[in-house]
Amino acid sequence: MFQQLGLIGCGLMGGSFALALKRAGLVKHVVGYSKSPSTTERARRAGVIDTAAESALLAVAGSDIVLLAVPVAATESTFKAIRHLVEPEVLIMDVGSTKRDVVDAARRVLKERISGFVPAHPIAGKEKAGVHHADADLYTGRQVILTPLPQTDALLLQKAADTWTAIGAQVIRMSPDSHDAALAAVSHLPHLLAFAFYNAVAKQPGGDEFLSLAGPGFRDFTRIAASDPTIWRDILLANREETLKQSMRFRHALEALEHVMRSGNAEALEDLIRSASEGRAAWQMNSPRPSAAPAVPPLR
Amino acid sequence: MFQQLGLIGCGLMGGSFALALKRAGLVKHVVGYSKSPSTTERARRAGVIDTAAESALLAVAGSDIVLLAVPVAATESTFKAIRHLVEPEVLIMDVGSTKRDVVDAARRVLKERISGFVPAHPIAGKEKAGVHHADADLYTGRQVILTPLPQTDALLLQKAADTWTAIGAQVIRMSPDSHDAALAAVSHLPHLLAFAFYNAVAKQPGGDEFLSLAGPGFRDFTRIAASDPTIWRDILLANREETLKQSMRFRHALEALEHVMRSGNAEALEDLIRSASEGRAAWQMNSPRPSAAPAVPPLR
Repeated sequence: MFQQLGLIGCGLMGGSFALALKRAGLVKHVVGYSKSPSTTERARRAGVIDTAAESALLAVAGSDIVLLAVPVAATESTFKAIRHLVEPEVLIMDVGSTKRDVVDAARRVLKERISGFVPAHPIAGKEKAGVHHADADLYTGRQVILTPLPQTDALLLQKAADTWTAIGAQVIRMSPDSHDAALAAVSHLPHLLAFAFYNAVAKQPGGDEFLSLAGPGFRDFTRIAASDPTIWRDILLANREETLKQSMRFRHALEALEHVMRSGNAEALEDLIRSASEGRAAWQMNSPRPSAAPAVPPLR
Repeated sequence: MFQQLGLIGCGLMGGSFALALKRAGLVKHVVGYSKSPSTTERARRAGVIDTAAESALLAVAGSDIVLLAVPVAATESTFKAIRHLVEPEVLIMDVGSTKRDVVDAARRVLKERISGFVPAHPIAGKEKAGVHHADADLYTGRQVILTPLPQTDALLLQKAADTWTAIGAQVIRMSPDSHDAALAAVSHLPHLLAFAFYNAVAKQPGGDEFLSLAGPGFRDFTRIAASDPTIWRDILLANREETLKQSMRFRHALEALEHVMRSGNAEALEDLIRSASEGRAAWQMNSPRPSAAPAVPPLR
């Protein structure tokens, strides 16, 4: 049970965390701050936060748990804004989709005060941003990856894991680099491909006509292309090396398919499609991790 | 009102058409044939067809409407099997996802008997095939593209349009070539990309681990990767020229994004993402066609 949550960034991710903590009875009071005062005010009126703070620093004052829910590129400046009130017993988490850059920023800014910071990435979201889409159930049944550092306080790390578990999430522990490599493959690359695909279709002669004929397959394939441009600009830049590596792998797989199409090799084409089709049909979201997984056991 | 539907291919598409016609009271009797006798039998037991025929030809005998719902590569052999019973007053349609190759096959086989053939492509489907997934609502609210030929009988064309309209679909008329160009962009290419993406992620070291971390964005983006391998082998081969053209466009769009990521040009990256994001957010399935569309007006 926390006395006060200091929420920095009252958008979809932060707002949903506040609502989930309140519903679970895990926090008495929520103080929120957003860069735009109108967002903070909207969050207060919606009951997502109880009190509006006038700065990030004031949101941290008196809080025993702090969540940074800002675009990843704003992480470093946010740490700078709050570092004077960062105390060793306060649990600080973020929700950024990349972890290596967030951890680097924390090291640079927080220095020896870094022990209370538990980097976190809940694998959840919507293509619609903003506090009016905040949802106490956003994290229910979802995975949350924690990427603690050697300096991370073990008790606060456990508290972080307990908190996510209590709001229905499944906690996984990884290194920041493993996190970024994995998420490049299963999240950042598909977003990049969806953006590229939508642009390619829309920006050609007859594109509008083509789009009017698109069906449910197209709808689902392109849903993530509607994601927030500034958030995804930051993610793709922060994790560009891993994402570009994955893009290269993807191009090779695409070229293999194109090659057998061009040569008319029906059997080889069917084999390539079948491996994808059977794999995807067997895949299940949030399924248990493979037993042969590297040494990144669940925290509890 | 038809006396008898001859259904050749009692799978998802054909079975759903039979169920929809029955529910709308548009047909008295359904005679079905599938290559595999067990499929035909399953369709009969499920009430999708009333009588099992022992050959495609026998399914056509006595029918005043015939639906070919076979993989596109089997279209030509099916026409050959039934051509001796193709009469000028019988409406024959297919449901193939490609139209140029289907029309070519019809021309080669049916010759002067082609006037009763109305090539059709309902833009509907599921990633799960088979008669046990047949659904009277599969075509409700979906678009159906008819690609008649100069020889097509005008009355039968109207009958075809009326039939699809009566089961809740929206009828559009295009040329076979325009159809194939449009569908390459909005359907065939995304399937190709989804197959390539799934293979790229799954077939790398740590791929299983990565897949266990994938969330709802990945789930929707890859749903079509689970599509039927033989059906999609045939579609990608039948429409390979247009699909490869679209794939080239896609690669250029991907390279544009990769280029600005590599150069760290945040503004240009945001612009490219924003054009996709705003376009996709504004897109709606089955929205009215743009007024500047070429001369392919709805049939009615």
